[in-house]
Amino acid sequence: MKQPLTIVKVGGGVVEDPASLHPLLDSFAAIEGHKLLVHGGGRLATRLATDLGLESRMHNGRRITDAETLRIVTMVYGGLVNKQIVAALQARGIQALGLTGADADLIRSTRRPPVGGIDYGFVGDVKHVRAELLANLISQGILPVVAPLTHDGCGSMLNTNADTIASQVACALAAHFDVTLTFCFEKAGVLANPDDPASVISLITPDLFEHHVAQGTIHAGMIPKLENAFQALESGVARVLITASTDPSCQHGTTIALG
Amino acid sequence: MKQPLTIVKVGGGVVEDPASLHPLLDSFAAIEGHKLLVHGGGRLATRLATDLGLESRMHNGRRITDAETLRIVTMVYGGLVNKQIVAALQARGIQALGLTGADADLIRSTRRPPVGGIDYGFVGDVKHVRAELLANLISQGILPVVAPLTHDGCGSMLNTNADTIASQVACALAAHFDVTLTFCFEKAGVLANPDDPASVISLITPDLFEHHVAQGTIHAGMIPKLENAFQALESGVARVLITASTDPSCQHGTTIALG
Repeated sequence: MKQPLTIVKVGGGVVEDPASLHPLLDSFAAIEGHKLLVHGGGRLATRLATDLGLESRMHNGRRITDAETLRIVTMVYGGLVNKQIVAALQARGIQALGLTGADADLIRSTRRPPVGGIDYGFVGDVKHVRAELLANLISQGILPVVAPLTHDGCGSMLNTNADTIASQVACALAAHFDVTLTFCFEKAGVLANPDDPASVISLITPDLFEHHVAQGTIHAGMIPKLENAFQALESGVARVLITASTDPSCQHGTTIALG
Repeated sequence: MKQPLTIVKVGGGVVEDPASLHPLLDSFAAIEGHKLLVHGGGRLATRLATDLGLESRMHNGRRITDAETLRIVTMVYGGLVNKQIVAALQARGIQALGLTGADADLIRSTRRPPVGGIDYGFVGDVKHVRAELLANLISQGILPVVAPLTHDGCGSMLNTNADTIASQVACALAAHFDVTLTFCFEKAGVLANPDDPASVISLITPDLFEHHVAQGTIHAGMIPKLENAFQALESGVARVLITASTDPSCQHGTTIALG
């Protein structure tokens, strides 16, 4: 029987504010068994870019990463956010180890070719996750803290979406562990009514997903998040949860299931 | 018999310029056996601080690290420089893994109390190096790339001099490996005449050190560097070399020896 592993993804909105980060890390630290954390940091990257007089260009919610932006996200995701989280987990007695995809060749990616006339720049699509190395570290009592950065194997770092990193790592580790993949964000779960924080949809199956998309209840950025979730389940991830950052063990959030 | 381990420290002047960094990494990659790299990055940190409109304050060549400066060095050392080196070594087929002192609790330090009326701020004096963890990684074929950042175990990163990190890591690993500690910088070695790049002193023993200091040949920042070197030798490091970044295997540099 495989040992349980909880993979939690926390977004930029949570990690940028100590008032939300520290309670999350307390709850996260209290989850039993093996754990892995994937973090974002987009808002802090945008703020640093602004402070440096650079414009942040986005397309469909994704950051266009020119050479200067790549330097910024490497600093913010790989340095500032990653190390602040690692130091904060160490203060809670947890053997956290910060990693990007370049470290020990953990996550190799391919630079995305221009799509529909849009060149995303130094953005990487995941090609390979070294699951055995990660599983080995986890089994030694290490808690990997993974930044949303990959590398191309040819010397360049690449910017990769943190949700994608979390899904791909979860899929790769599903062969080694009984994986729960939890997306933590500002809301309590997937909402039936975006204006009503109490309208959490407790369960979403593929049929219910189609129904909610047709009704317009689920739209925009939530669609690729849920498609990612179904793909992770199909690849062997045991369960996928979408929940509030105050509730990483998902007492009140949304469970995604295949049926 | 202990296996050889080469620890190379490269300063900010070398790492900030791809024209000097890449040849260094080529030579470094060609050194046989186990290796570990410690890097600086001070000049890039100063440049980012300037770009953000912050003044870099130094005292005796050491950076005064207020809260904003700590964010900057965490970004530059732990993110930008560390990951650029890791990605560049991966492109050379080397299993590089970037680490700060916070990662896996590798190097714990104590915040330095104000000395002689000078408060260095978030600067850490090394208290403990987890040598067994490092030795274990190295024996698994990992090449650690260590940034000059430590942590206090209470949630704060701290800024620690890269020469000190290199010496302390070398001393801690001397129980596990036959350690060569090499400081790479812009000059060919310790010079008898700072204006003559060819005047490299090939061997410095404690007696010769005292002689050169009395004569004024060795002065300023080179004195603590050499004191560090003698301390490393007394702690079991097999040899200490000071050499050009173009010559990390030290064909033409300075050897420091106890006698």
